[in-house]
Amino acid sequence: MDKTSDALAHARALIACESVTPATGAVFDALEAMLAPLGFECHRFVRGDADEGGPVENCLAVRRGPEGSRHFAFAGHVDVVPPGEGWTSDPFEPEIRGDLLYGRGAVDMKGAVAAMVAAAGEIPREAGTISLIITGDEEGMGIHGTRALIDVIRERGEIPDLCLVGEPTSVNRLGDMMKPGRRGSINVWLEVEGVQGHVAYPHLADNPVSKLVAMLSELDALVLDEGTDWFQPSNLEITDLEVGNAAHNVIPRKARARISIRFNDLHTGQALADMVSAIAQRHGGTAKPVISGEPFLTPPGRFQDLVAAAVKAETGIEPQPSTSGGTSDARFLKDIVPVIEFGLVNATMHKLDEAVAVADLETLARIYRRIALAALAGDTE
Amino acid sequence: MDKTSDALAHARALIACESVTPATGAVFDALEAMLAPLGFECHRFVRGDADEGGPVENCLAVRRGPEGSRHFAFAGHVDVVPPGEGWTSDPFEPEIRGDLLYGRGAVDMKGAVAAMVAAAGEIPREAGTISLIITGDEEGMGIHGTRALIDVIRERGEIPDLCLVGEPTSVNRLGDMMKPGRRGSINVWLEVEGVQGHVAYPHLADNPVSKLVAMLSELDALVLDEGTDWFQPSNLEITDLEVGNAAHNVIPRKARARISIRFNDLHTGQALADMVSAIAQRHGGTAKPVISGEPFLTPPGRFQDLVAAAVKAETGIEPQPSTSGGTSDARFLKDIVPVIEFGLVNATMHKLDEAVAVADLETLARIYRRIALAALAGDTE
Repeated sequence: MDKTSDALAHARALIACESVTPATGAVFDALEAMLAPLGFECHRFVRGDADEGGPVENCLAVRRGPEGSRHFAFAGHVDVVPPGEGWTSDPFEPEIRGDLLYGRGAVDMKGAVAAMVAAAGEIPREAGTISLIITGDEEGMGIHGTRALIDVIRERGEIPDLCLVGEPTSVNRLGDMMKPGRRGSINVWLEVEGVQGHVAYPHLADNPVSKLVAMLSELDALVLDEGTDWFQPSNLEITDLEVGNAAHNVIPRKARARISIRFNDLHTGQALADMVSAIAQRHGGTAKPVISGEPFLTPPGRFQDLVAAAVKAETGIEPQPSTSGGTSDARFLKDIVPVIEFGLVNATMHKLDEAVAVADLETLARIYRRIALAALAGDTE
Repeated sequence: MDKTSDALAHARALIACESVTPATGAVFDALEAMLAPLGFECHRFVRGDADEGGPVENCLAVRRGPEGSRHFAFAGHVDVVPPGEGWTSDPFEPEIRGDLLYGRGAVDMKGAVAAMVAAAGEIPREAGTISLIITGDEEGMGIHGTRALIDVIRERGEIPDLCLVGEPTSVNRLGDMMKPGRRGSINVWLEVEGVQGHVAYPHLADNPVSKLVAMLSELDALVLDEGTDWFQPSNLEITDLEVGNAAHNVIPRKARARISIRFNDLHTGQALADMVSAIAQRHGGTAKPVISGEPFLTPPGRFQDLVAAAVKAETGIEPQPSTSGGTSDARFLKDIVPVIEFGLVNATMHKLDEAVAVADLETLARIYRRIALAALAGDTE
């Protein structure tokens, strides 16, 4: 029997550990219990206080290959979003019904982490160095998770040659989509201060809402770009407005808004922050930008081909490269290593009755094994 | 000694009755105690429940002149805005310091009501019919106040020929401004409903904030008119915005705003409501208009001249006719009688340490007496 069926056992073990973000403890104990027998050395550490999104546990697991061999990394997370009310079975008690394994994290992404572990168990040590970069803070604030892991990776000199992130990128069936890039993300808090007054005496007041509306009108009309070969057009959304003035005959003193921009690699977060700030200032306001992540792109080439070939060999289909959707920890990892995301079907992620096809878990483990072996071999096709 | 110095005693008596809006009881007892000895018949009534701005007391005081004589009315209110914290002396214990009488309502407008009573006491019954139209709900919601008084006036057939409202219209010194008209007022609650979604997948959402901003942009750019000989231009202010979306990666489902329009007699409240609603609908939203008052204007002519002459005779200055500022109960009274507002210096109204010059109280009583006598005489210049 193919040992990749360990993927199912590992997935059950991980799901059984309740690990709503930020995660520490039991789920990492379970992970270490799987990896240690395979020869992995687990470096676990906890970071952050409760008031800044912590405490968060992280695990850098490394199994060193022969001196001078290549180094391939899997990256992922074992924290999950809250289950919500209304599941058919307990979200933290893995249950198979029909062809599916149910449980919070089944696809996002304890199932993928289980497949990584199963794949690693099938790769001979002589093939090269394998690491697993696993955080307990991908679904949360992301402050003490992968960023902290990258610091540790740098300190310990364990920088991989290539990295695969196991986010659920497949859409309708396993293998139909991979993500060789993602857009960047920036949120900007906008504020205009005016002079409060009575609506009957507008010349004695200075209405900040008019200025904010003009500012937002200009921002909302921006065409940031037309998209690129690999990215859809960058997009700006106004996500919040706030004045909080209950008195209908009063011109308020202050007006606030928040915008969110998802942007491709024609931009940098800082350039967008500067542009928005300039527009805000021109309308008498101020802008506080927070850059959540820069875009990343591993352009077409050897790494994309290698992933596509592994997917095709196991599923028969060619994965579509896409850069759509939200951000992932690849936004941080891209600073140290070329990175591509590939994983399970995302239809049920973050939803009630999250579930993965048992067969997909085993197929994914085989795909991951192929990817790792090809990456370690340095195949150029 | 001029009996108009009764104005000071009356003002003290009224201020001593705590009567934060809506007012009932003691302050009306005090008023009736002043008017009854002068031959006035006081028709007092209470209207409204607590959940709709009540209970509110009102008083229609009438002293009938000879059969067929003219009828002049003073109108005003004995409710006051809340005093707030930080007064030098108790806001409901009238206190003279230097030349000033301090107390909540000193200028807005217990002082003026006191001057009306003092003036009425100086007018012989043979001169004609005098009435005082006094409400306890001018500073509040205005639902059960002057509107209810107008119903009673109509029922009892006591419609006056001319009416003077004693709001504090003077700006720098007593007599410098009168208000032969006021703008109308309408507030509109605007709402746009969209489809919530993730900012990374804007094509699956429909952002209501963009539509609201476009709607508000169009509304804020409107030029309603250029003003008239008697009115400043109509004006629109955006007074509130609300989305209430804390999640920075979520496109919200709903966005709201509120606008306030002060408009002159080139418009009606209903026409403006219809226009705003049409713009809101064009941007995919809805509008809920609430018309607070239509504009009124007593155009230049005999009544304005008569008021101006009385002011000039007592103060030596010519009152500037103005239609600026907020609304008053004249917006209701204009439906049954030509109305002009004239009263004390408004510098301290609604503020801490509200105060009136004692000398102004006495001068105002004399001005009111002159106005009433001229109005009853039917003087045409």
